[in-house]
Amino acid sequence: MARPGQPGSEIQDVAHLAHVELLSPRPEATVRFFTELLGLFVTARSGQSVYLRAWGDHYHHSVKVTESPRAGLGHVAWRAWSDEALERRVSDLEETEFGQGWIDGDLGHGRAYRFTDPAGHRMELFFEVEKARAPAGEAPRLKNRPMRVPVNGPGISRIDHVNLFTQDVPANREFLQARLGFRHREGIVHDDLEIGAWLSVTPLVHDIAYTFDRQSEVRGRLHHVAYWADTFDGLARSADLMREHDIFIEAGPGKHAITNALFLYCYEPGGNRVELFTGGYLIFDPDWQPVIWTKEERELRMWWGGRLPESFHTYGTPQVDA
Amino acid sequence: MARPGQPGSEIQDVAHLAHVELLSPRPEATVRFFTELLGLFVTARSGQSVYLRAWGDHYHHSVKVTESPRAGLGHVAWRAWSDEALERRVSDLEETEFGQGWIDGDLGHGRAYRFTDPAGHRMELFFEVEKARAPAGEAPRLKNRPMRVPVNGPGISRIDHVNLFTQDVPANREFLQARLGFRHREGIVHDDLEIGAWLSVTPLVHDIAYTFDRQSEVRGRLHHVAYWADTFDGLARSADLMREHDIFIEAGPGKHAITNALFLYCYEPGGNRVELFTGGYLIFDPDWQPVIWTKEERELRMWWGGRLPESFHTYGTPQVDA
Amino acid sequence: MARPGQPGSEIQDVAHLAHVELLSPRPEATVRFFTELLGLFVTARSGQSVYLRAWGDHYHHSVKVTESPRAGLGHVAWRAWSDEALERRVSDLEETEFGQGWIDGDLGHGRAYRFTDPAGHRMELFFEVEKARAPAGEAPRLKNRPMRVPVNGPGISRIDHVNLFTQDVPANREFLQARLGFRHREGIVHDDLEIGAWLSVTPLVHDIAYTFDRQSEVRGRLHHVAYWADTFDGLARSADLMREHDIFIEAGPGKHAITNALFLYCYEPGGNRVELFTGGYLIFDPDWQPVIWTKEERELRMWWGGRLPESFHTYGTPQVDA
Amino acid sequence: MARPGQPGSEIQDVAHLAHVELLSPRPEATVRFFTELLGLFVTARSGQSVYLRAWGDHYHHSVKVTESPRAGLGHVAWRAWSDEALERRVSDLEETEFGQGWIDGDLGHGRAYRFTDPAGHRMELFFEVEKARAPAGEAPRLKNRPMRVPVNGPGISRIDHVNLFTQDVPANREFLQARLGFRHREGIVHDDLEIGAWLSVTPLVHDIAYTFDRQSEVRGRLHHVAYWADTFDGLARSADLMREHDIFIEAGPGKHAITNALFLYCYEPGGNRVELFTGGYLIFDPDWQPVIWTKEERELRMWWGGRLPESFHTYGTPQVDA
Repeated sequence: MARPGQPGSEIQDVAHLAHVELLSPRPEATVRFFTELLGLFVTARSGQSVYLRAWGDHYHHSVKVTESPRAGLGHVAWRAWSDEALERRVSDLEETEFGQGWIDGDLGHGRAYRFTDPAGHRMELFFEVEKARAPAGEAPRLKNRPMRVPVNGPGISRIDHVNLFTQDVPANREFLQARLGFRHREGIVHDDLEIGAWLSVTPLVHDIAYTFDRQSEVRGRLHHVAYWADTFDGLARSADLMREHDIFIEAGPGKHAITNALFLYCYEPGGNRVELFTGGYLIFDPDWQPVIWTKEERELRMWWGGRLPESFHTYGTPQVDA
Repeated sequence: MARPGQPGSEIQDVAHLAHVELLSPRPEATVRFFTELLGLFVTARSGQSVYLRAWGDHYHHSVKVTESPRAGLGHVAWRAWSDEALERRVSDLEETEFGQGWIDGDLGHGRAYRFTDPAGHRMELFFEVEKARAPAGEAPRLKNRPMRVPVNGPGISRIDHVNLFTQDVPANREFLQARLGFRHREGIVHDDLEIGAWLSVTPLVHDIAYTFDRQSEVRGRLHHVAYWADTFDGLARSADLMREHDIFIEAGPGKHAITNALFLYCYEPGGNRVELFTGGYLIFDPDWQPVIWTKEERELRMWWGGRLPESFHTYGTPQVDA
Repeated sequence: MARPGQPGSEIQDVAHLAHVELLSPRPEATVRFFTELLGLFVTARSGQSVYLRAWGDHYHHSVKVTESPRAGLGHVAWRAWSDEALERRVSDLEETEFGQGWIDGDLGHGRAYRFTDPAGHRMELFFEVEKARAPAGEAPRLKNRPMRVPVNGPGISRIDHVNLFTQDVPANREFLQARLGFRHREGIVHDDLEIGAWLSVTPLVHDIAYTFDRQSEVRGRLHHVAYWADTFDGLARSADLMREHDIFIEAGPGKHAITNALFLYCYEPGGNRVELFTGGYLIFDPDWQPVIWTKEERELRMWWGGRLPESFHTYGTPQVDA
Repeated sequence: MARPGQPGSEIQDVAHLAHVELLSPRPEATVRFFTELLGLFVTARSGQSVYLRAWGDHYHHSVKVTESPRAGLGHVAWRAWSDEALERRVSDLEETEFGQGWIDGDLGHGRAYRFTDPAGHRMELFFEVEKARAPAGEAPRLKNRPMRVPVNGPGISRIDHVNLFTQDVPANREFLQARLGFRHREGIVHDDLEIGAWLSVTPLVHDIAYTFDRQSEVRGRLHHVAYWADTFDGLARSADLMREHDIFIEAGPGKHAITNALFLYCYEPGGNRVELFTGGYLIFDPDWQPVIWTKEERELRMWWGGRLPESFHTYGTPQVDA
């Protein structure tokens, strides 16, 4: 990313992850999972889509659930820092083969530029956004909160990151670095094959990760979307609720070496993997060097909480035959 | 702060809070407080100073304890984004009456530019820094950790922020905004008097706060320095340890409305107020508007955990007669 | 309590606290507090009463909310170890001036013997009880759980204890010891005045406490009823929910020296003080000696979490003029 | 157990689990594990043994580590309710083939009666005991605490239970029920084979468990000894410390269906499995019926936290060849 005029400054055109669209063959069950078990709120319904946010999300929605024959990723939406920053990123994207053009917007945000990453995941970039507003009669008492803490759920406060499958991790990582200004935070290289990359524009240890799809050459598969849990107790409470309500827990609660974060992975009723995530660390160091993990360190990577099942490396949405 | 060349981008010259120097009339007791109760490590001793860091701090030290007849703030050190960013901020600071000139550096960092804020708190800005390295035989097993998690202490992982007393909040706030690129996150205005300002260069809800000194016109007083606790249970465990070891707890554990953070305030044996801090929220929104609290909302501000004692508004270091 | 035939054994005729009846001038608001904020379930409604239990309570109900012009205690119900144990305790109670006679029972339990303590608090003792049964379609997946963990609330699992006001602590303590086999666990004696007594028949540090009523000679006043919170995070989450929903928090979260327990005190909408309680310790030692705290240790008693307000020593239900 | 004279009362002659003796081929490493990582205190050293207790244990010691060529169980010690209760249990034990006779006592307790269970695990029963006393200069500020909360460790407060391997679960269960008054709380029966039994004399869901040894006919093998962790965060912190210090974690943190408890299993450096345990539930119901789990419910039993490894069903101490 060209950084004219301000040598040595942090220059950030992409502000952060704004929302994710999930495709679900069972949209009402998916919505109930997010609202009843996790405590998200429905903010709008339109056509085949339902828009939701967690109590601490600051925009109109952080997840859009759209009915579809198969589970998967609709799109990932990033917010630009300003309209000028948006224009600047778009002219960069238009130089690539991945730009697709403008749309007028959607519920909750203004015009957006559509593109894909090299692996074919649909993405959007926009600036104009509708800030979260509590419904009449449900205003939070605290004006720095977009919403009341809900009485239900385990304390899930905001969207955190998205993790995408690809068979070419470096191409996607480099695209986000070169065109959108992402920084490389951690990675996995087995022998000469880069099989994981954690990237962020914010001090979060990742806003997005790419991991190697062992199963399929199908493009555009989703590994998971992650929401932030305020406490580790929230992960334990979530696991309890998921078991009582027949939500499949794939792994956790546990702790990753990479990101140092506490996790719980489940499949929402539509089939998409959802992570609840907390802990981890923030990166404020301007000359942070990516931490690269090798094959020999494989055992360490699951810091504690048992071994990740094989499905963790192969299951994605849309599902494909083995 | 002028932002030439990149209209609408986030342009950040100051990266984050690097460390704080505390003056202590009982330096060994202060060091024992940080090491035995909070689990920090001594990284160096030199002259009348001891350098320490928490297990998750990424540089040589995050606090420097210097023997002094009276408790108080030595200085606050910020890291610049690069050497060019450092130069740029320095030339801005030199236009003011507050620039003081370069020093060669200190243990753990290179040349630094000294200045004060309008209230007279000593500050430094540097770029070259020594990254944290675990002592021989104590390397962490995880290479994205600067240090092993210690067996003692309640899980305090890194420096978080500093809070300074002043009788002119807006002058200091505006200075940090204009000269160092800080953003105004939250504030308190009672009638027409601005009595609190929370500012950050990072998405943390504050890297620094200014609060109104009801007690004294003495310049340069410290309200507190804050370390991050990984969990709320860590605050409870800290409170237990403090009570057993005769550390004075002034307030908490509790929750502030402003910052939405969980807190515990104590006085370390040298007399400086230290906060343990967790929770809160992160600000990723590029057009965040400062949240300003009024006198009428005063009751709300102590969200829960009892009322803050009067000393919270008057006690600072150095102490002054009432 | 005479213990024929088995010298040196633990002989227990009263098994534990079964439920408490609360009087409320705003019964529907009281019920919403218990169900929406704390996650209790309504198990029955009859006449002017609503019966509720927490997910981990093993009997039909643990609290009965009865409409009444004034807040206060309806009665405290203890379960006997067996029908023979019930008869034995009743014949002991009938020797006192406090026995009142049998009732046929109530929803959820069989015949019960009514009596008061010397301070006039109504109590009942019964053996036959209806075990908790989940409603159709809401059976827990785990058969050692009486109920599913609810999706709402902060993880409140069972009734814990009751605390009663009196101006004669020793008379009430001795009555429970002599007639019902309670053990004296902790106490407060200021100079020669016993102002607090914590008693239990179980290893819980208390099933019941008596505290000195500084305010009023009115007999039979309730200090509080307490529910067990599974975690300290649950207390923090409860405090958040209470503040958002205008439930008055009187004190906490904090930690008492006596019982070593973490607490949060609020007034439910009907006016009765309710405690959420966790931590503490269990007493398995058969020759436990009561731990008696003196006036000089007063400062210690609030171990951490701020000072208890004056109302803690004077407010009870029914309320009386100062 | 005959219960003369008091029909229908709870009559308890055995008060609770007092301590466990562990045999270790690496006693100093075992002691460092308990002291440095878990925060226990050494209370005495004598001959080849080191005596320790957790901060909340009320007697002289809760674990005795004795040097031995092979890891394993030394003995399990129960405290009687009184000297008469001790005599009464001994005369019952002497009617069996398992009584072994009196010893004069040990550091921390008086005369004790030795016996085994049918599976050959050595046990002792005593009444006279030395209460925990803090060393000079380390007295806790709270007089209901036997010891200060230590600055190190994850908040492990007391011994909880012991779990023993056997190939005849019902014989051992019935022996404890008949001779020592234990109650049967939960169990596992696969087809017609009873493979697990959880028993207690206290309201704890178990003071002792027997589980089926799939591996070996060797008698007297230990499955694990368990300490109570004050919080689930303590389990997470323990797992972190164990990983940093090369303590093998076999399973967890996770949650069992049986007991509803949160667990973390590791092997201490001497080879014995140690569990950190929290949560669970208390049983106050006098007519509690054992909850028996079937083969068909096998999947449920690991409520969350991943699958238990095969070693959980085969590894015990002393180790035997497969």
